Amino acid sequence: MKSQITNALSDFFFEYETPRQVLVRNRRVGVVCRLIQLGVLAYIIGWVFIYEKGYQSSDTAVSSVFSKMKGVGYTNVTGTERIWDVADYVFPPQGDSSFVVMTNYIITEGQKMGNCPELPGKHNCSSDADCEGGSFKRTGHGQMTGKCVNTTKTCEVLAWCPVEDDNNIPDPPLLMSAENYTLFIKNSVTFPLFEVTRSNLVEGIDNNYISKCLYDQEDSPLCPIFKLGDIVKMSGFNFETIAKVGGAIGIVIDWTCNLDFNVKHCKPMYNFHGLYGNPDEKDKARASVGYNFRFAKHYMEDKVQQRTLLKVFGIRIDIIVQSLARKFDIIPTLTAIGSGVGIFGVATVVCDLVLLYLLPKREFYKNMKFKYTDTQTQTGSLCN
Amino acid sequence: MKSQITNALSDFFFEYETPRQVLVRNRRVGVVCRLIQLGVLAYIIGWVFIYEKGYQSSDTAVSSVFSKMKGVGYTNVTGTERIWDVADYVFPPQGDSSFVVMTNYIITEGQKMGNCPELPGKHNCSSDADCEGGSFKRTGHGQMTGKCVNTTKTCEVLAWCPVEDDNNIPDPPLLMSAENYTLFIKNSVTFPLFEVTRSNLVEGIDNNYISKCLYDQEDSPLCPIFKLGDIVKMSGFNFETIAKVGGAIGIVIDWTCNLDFNVKHCKPMYNFHGLYGNPDEKDKARASVGYNFRFAKHYMEDKVQQRTLLKVFGIRIDIIVQSLARKFDIIPTLTAIGSGVGIFGVATVVCDLVLLYLLPKREFYKNMKFKYTDTQTQTGSLCN
Amino acid sequence: MKSQITNALSDFFFEYETPRQVLVRNRRVGVVCRLIQLGVLAYIIGWVFIYEKGYQSSDTAVSSVFSKMKGVGYTNVTGTERIWDVADYVFPPQGDSSFVVMTNYIITEGQKMGNCPELPGKHNCSSDADCEGGSFKRTGHGQMTGKCVNTTKTCEVLAWCPVEDDNNIPDPPLLMSAENYTLFIKNSVTFPLFEVTRSNLVEGIDNNYISKCLYDQEDSPLCPIFKLGDIVKMSGFNFETIAKVGGAIGIVIDWTCNLDFNVKHCKPMYNFHGLYGNPDEKDKARASVGYNFRFAKHYMEDKVQQRTLLKVFGIRIDIIVQSLARKFDIIPTLTAIGSGVGIFGVATVVCDLVLLYLLPKREFYKNMKFKYTDTQTQTGSLCN
Repeated sequence: MKSQITNALSDFFFEYETPRQVLVRNRRVGVVCRLIQLGVLAYIIGWVFIYEKGYQSSDTAVSSVFSKMKGVGYTNVTGTERIWDVADYVFPPQGDSSFVVMTNYIITEGQKMGNCPELPGKHNCSSDADCEGGSFKRTGHGQMTGKCVNTTKTCEVLAWCPVEDDNNIPDPPLLMSAENYTLFIKNSVTFPLFEVTRSNLVEGIDNNYISKCLYDQEDSPLCPIFKLGDIVKMSGFNFETIAKVGGAIGIVIDWTCNLDFNVKHCKPMYNFHGLYGNPDEKDKARASVGYNFRFAKHYMEDKVQQRTLLKVFGIRIDIIVQSLARKFDIIPTLTAIGSGVGIFGVATVVCDLVLLYLLPKREFYKNMKFKYTDTQTQTGSLCN
Repeated sequence: MKSQITNALSDFFFEYETPRQVLVRNRRVGVVCRLIQLGVLAYIIGWVFIYEKGYQSSDTAVSSVFSKMKGVGYTNVTGTERIWDVADYVFPPQGDSSFVVMTNYIITEGQKMGNCPELPGKHNCSSDADCEGGSFKRTGHGQMTGKCVNTTKTCEVLAWCPVEDDNNIPDPPLLMSAENYTLFIKNSVTFPLFEVTRSNLVEGIDNNYISKCLYDQEDSPLCPIFKLGDIVKMSGFNFETIAKVGGAIGIVIDWTCNLDFNVKHCKPMYNFHGLYGNPDEKDKARASVGYNFRFAKHYMEDKVQQRTLLKVFGIRIDIIVQSLARKFDIIPTLTAIGSGVGIFGVATVVCDLVLLYLLPKREFYKNMKFKYTDTQTQTGSLCN
Repeated sequence: MKSQITNALSDFFFEYETPRQVLVRNRRVGVVCRLIQLGVLAYIIGWVFIYEKGYQSSDTAVSSVFSKMKGVGYTNVTGTERIWDVADYVFPPQGDSSFVVMTNYIITEGQKMGNCPELPGKHNCSSDADCEGGSFKRTGHGQMTGKCVNTTKTCEVLAWCPVEDDNNIPDPPLLMSAENYTLFIKNSVTFPLFEVTRSNLVEGIDNNYISKCLYDQEDSPLCPIFKLGDIVKMSGFNFETIAKVGGAIGIVIDWTCNLDFNVKHCKPMYNFHGLYGNPDEKDKARASVGYNFRFAKHYMEDKVQQRTLLKVFGIRIDIIVQSLARKFDIIPTLTAIGSGVGIFGVATVVCDLVLLYLLPKREFYKNMKFKYTDTQTQTGSLCN
């Protein structure tokens, strides 16, 4: 019994099987098949390995983004001069990756809780019967009291009074000076699979360089300081248009890195595009253009709570990090090789079809290739 | 030498190798093997290609989300009527993808910096010795002064006074009218690999439609305007419960797109689910229910800094974009084919095992399939 | 005709092809080839299946994060005691996944819109000619009026006056007590492919446990409550340094789950690292250190709008969710097997090269393996 197992094992180890093959010496078949095989080989090496880098595994990054605006705005509304600094025009203030820079606004000062008529055009009425007390309108400013105000022919509402009139958007936008604001972006990315951490302040981008540089696609593509006017222009908008009604711009930081090279070649690329209603698109996506929101500053005056309401039109900037790092890895390499050998098998099948079904001497080749178990049992024992 | 290379090259190009095969004419083996092979083929074509779409490569999107609430809330606390508009009840105001809608609150007005006793139940004391001056308690409101206040039997603290008493949460919630607020979502996705950009304002969702529509899972699944009460209901909550203590709801915008079809079929799907403490779950995840935070409005009165503290209970809405686009690609197609040919090889191995070890005539087939190098060297030269 | 098709079909179904093989009984070749084949097998089973878990498909999660700080800060600036609570020191207040905890500040109280001289060092001038009226400087505080102020030798600007002087950062930081603040994190992840939802309040982390626990890498790695001082220490910073000028810390919640096991083994891991300027790195990434932003509180005094400007230095905390769930899936399993069979084919090719080109008896083996179509056509019909 034991010797049987030993025999089987030694048989297994000292034997080697290799397929028997017919070597067909035929120019036509030979050239066709070699070309097919070379094509498959070229595809595997050229496309899978070199072009698509199939020998690499890939990873996306976890990232964090900080932003900081700089610059001062100036408005002169009916003689009142006013300066707007960062604490006034950036929402939220703490340097998020998504924020709004105010470029235009409608201000309603001194609002108090009270009863006042709605805007003309909303809740029109001719008598008290038209204003159902206690009811709301989704787009209205408050709760109806049930009265119809004669002077304006609109219902009276309980609301922050006077109600905001946002029919006339200031044109030109009040804060055209926003064009000269600058944005500083700090971005850190980590590729957890490869344990690589990079910052957009790459080698050579030091304090000295930052204090002087300004981003330019050609001349200084790594400078992390951007002029707001440039951002708007590069994303295809006209500054005055977007400043008036607001808009949204995506700044995509693209980290496409081949980590088989030195990590210092892993550098960010900045792209800019309008997120909605890019003016030159003129497509259905323009259903809702502009970007605005309301913001209130509360204060007490004579023991009464009051507020200043701002309808802010602004440029919303979304800093989006897009990342793909690739590095040599044995698994995808061998998977690609193994899969390539499989495709080689397909090439063989195609050539066999040519050989066995299309060539004039196909019967001869068929005989060479195949041995039949039923018809040739008598010769099988002689020559196998 | 040169002619040798030429010979070798012409040999290589004009020759073609194809494996010699035994054609076993045996019904049992034939049927079994053909079925196995057909099964593998059916798996590769049916499962890998048709069901899992193995001929496609996939990509996830970079996206940006804007939100805008509309609607007016009304409270009547002990006779004081008050209106809450968007600038009052949405945090933060600028239309982020993650925001809180206030539905209930505890207000503490007129807080000034000063010394006052802690709440009953916190820092209880019977004499000054129980209150260590200068020390803090993590959940306390301020720094202990070292005094024990007789009237409340609690330590005195330096804090914003009077301290907030949040033991009684208003019930029913003060802003039940939040149920009728509406949420407008704008969402843009870009699949960088396929260079496709889509907005949730797809074809047919124009200004005219938006001004009238309201999201409904059956009737208008593409309308980007949602009633807050509907969102809460669809995520499995009861509005009054969640409005009282707050809660968190995820709105998942699902972009699963097959870009082999026209891009206009790439449409968003909206799903709603409670993020924590879904009431019908009753599981351990309910360790911490509710959602609240504190928010202060600062003002000056008589040259003294004061603040109004709001403990805000609200519905936190996280708009989450989930995306997967697929498109035909030659690499995964050939990888799947190559891998399938490999699995075909496995089928051959299984059939060979049947043929060589299980059939009654196995010795005969073994002889047919194998040629032995050592025992038959004398005949090898005659018939190979 | 019909019978021909039937014949072809029955031929197809009742036949089975298997490659004819040479069984080489040669110790050297046998051992070498078996070792190569065993190596490939070991690689496929050991590496692809066991180590890399190639039989699983993977998915990343959609997640949402809520945060809540607790604790009270205390400052004593030139005799004025002040308490800072959550509503004062967290920006933004609503519990985002990215927020700033104030640890130091420069306060400028009672700013009004008006004309005042710039800070010494900015816009120095000797006469009015040096100050171009109506112009800005990017890093300045306002718009130049065209006057040169004699007492300071700087240009006069229209700005929020008095302008902020941020040359001296308070040292030691004013809110060193921030070290004892605690952070509570709620995190929910959903793996859409596997339809699994998990919260960081896993089994056993109930209300009772949360009320007492504090995160510790060794003793309580699942407690979702973190001391700010611990977070800073674990990310490699010195608290006093980071508290003074600010800094950024990433809290990575790592959900690496093998869903072939019970879902309750799917637990979060918390990691902490400095996002920029980790003090012990001393690399180029330190081009811009610190983290600060400006924040204004507006109020009315004597009918004049005023503001308190805070330059906030703080610890920015980014809670980043990193997730990878894996589960058995038939597609990657069969792809791995198929690819493995392909690599087996490579092993055969290598062995054949050894057999046919390196062995002394190579000519003999060549004869055994190959049948030539041109030279042996006469014997081909006899023995195939």
